[in-house]
Amino acid sequence: MKGKLITIEGTEGVGKTTQNEFIQRFLGEKGIDFIVSREPGGTEIGEKIRALLLDKNHHQMASDTELLLMFAARAQHIAEKIIPALEKGQWVICDRFVDSSYAYQGFGRELGVKKIEQLEQWTLNGLQPDKTFLLLMDVTEGLQRAAKRAELDRFEEEKVDFYHKVQQGYLYRAKQFPDRFVVIDAAQSIQQVQADIQATLELLLDD
Amino acid sequence: MKGKLITIEGTEGVGKTTQNEFIQRFLGEKGIDFIVSREPGGTEIGEKIRALLLDKNHHQMASDTELLLMFAARAQHIAEKIIPALEKGQWVICDRFVDSSYAYQGFGRELGVKKIEQLEQWTLNGLQPDKTFLLLMDVTEGLQRAAKRAELDRFEEEKVDFYHKVQQGYLYRAKQFPDRFVVIDAAQSIQQVQADIQATLELLLDD
Repeated sequence: MKGKLITIEGTEGVGKTTQNEFIQRFLGEKGIDFIVSREPGGTEIGEKIRALLLDKNHHQMASDTELLLMFAARAQHIAEKIIPALEKGQWVICDRFVDSSYAYQGFGRELGVKKIEQLEQWTLNGLQPDKTFLLLMDVTEGLQRAAKRAELDRFEEEKVDFYHKVQQGYLYRAKQFPDRFVVIDAAQSIQQVQADIQATLELLLDD
Repeated sequence: MKGKLITIEGTEGVGKTTQNEFIQRFLGEKGIDFIVSREPGGTEIGEKIRALLLDKNHHQMASDTELLLMFAARAQHIAEKIIPALEKGQWVICDRFVDSSYAYQGFGRELGVKKIEQLEQWTLNGLQPDKTFLLLMDVTEGLQRAAKRAELDRFEEEKVDFYHKVQQGYLYRAKQFPDRFVVIDAAQSIQQVQADIQATLELLLDD
């Protein structure tokens, strides 16, 4: 595989979309062939699973069900979209990936990491992002920003306490994989955040 | 838990529905409080997952995705419906349960049993059917019967070879759990099949 997988992670309202667009512009200027995708979703079947997951009427969804739906969508995404793109030499920029499951289901829903490690082992089958940008910001401030955007989904309706646990999950993963993770202070100016991201991308291009 | 979980298994066209109705009549006459359910499905969320699984337009669905969706629906079914019913003392008659995952995904899709054992361990958390009726019939004859019913779903469109593997999966499970499984020759007359089922139910009532 010659392409690279870049994932963007963080809690609500930290500016993932803005930085995603910056990465796209940067790679475009460098003449890199890339696709953009997201999780949960990214495929026809995956987007239908996403709709089930985000539907705020599904307040009764069991945490195990939520975790299994996330990995069902991810297995489809990997098989149908990510692996074929990487094999063609394309880069894949993905809004959320496996680290979100550790953060949201493992820590946020308190399912622990063991179930997720099992699922990761056989659905990812060794696939790991080449680089993961983790945007960090005060959770409350992020949620306030997210609240201004649009109608909240089933996750965004969660309380601050839930997102503190999610944040802990992300930090757990970043500590586990210090070479893969680039932890970025998203409370800085957009220009400063982009300078941090660009420096990493430059190195990645030289690989 | 005072209620009992009875599952009905078998490939397409073996007469699960007819025998299910017989079990309902029998339990009703004995004054047993019961509910009827099915997999995949059985809950609002589970039925939406079922629709994704059976949709014949989803020919591109990865086998891992299929397996994870099955268990996502099952986790919801157990948490929201089966456990609460059993705890109230109700019996649960379920058209398909975990053995179908071994048969269809483990053997039919050739995913093997290890992934399924992992998923079973933490989604069932020790829950096992009290009795499983496995209806066996020549696979080809069953498929011919099923074809007469209605439009075929994504599974029913599979070829005979797939169903031979599914059948092998069921026999593997029956051998593994000889006390739980009641293997019934579904090619007998309906009356003979019902006599076999009734004999088992009488014993179960005395437990």
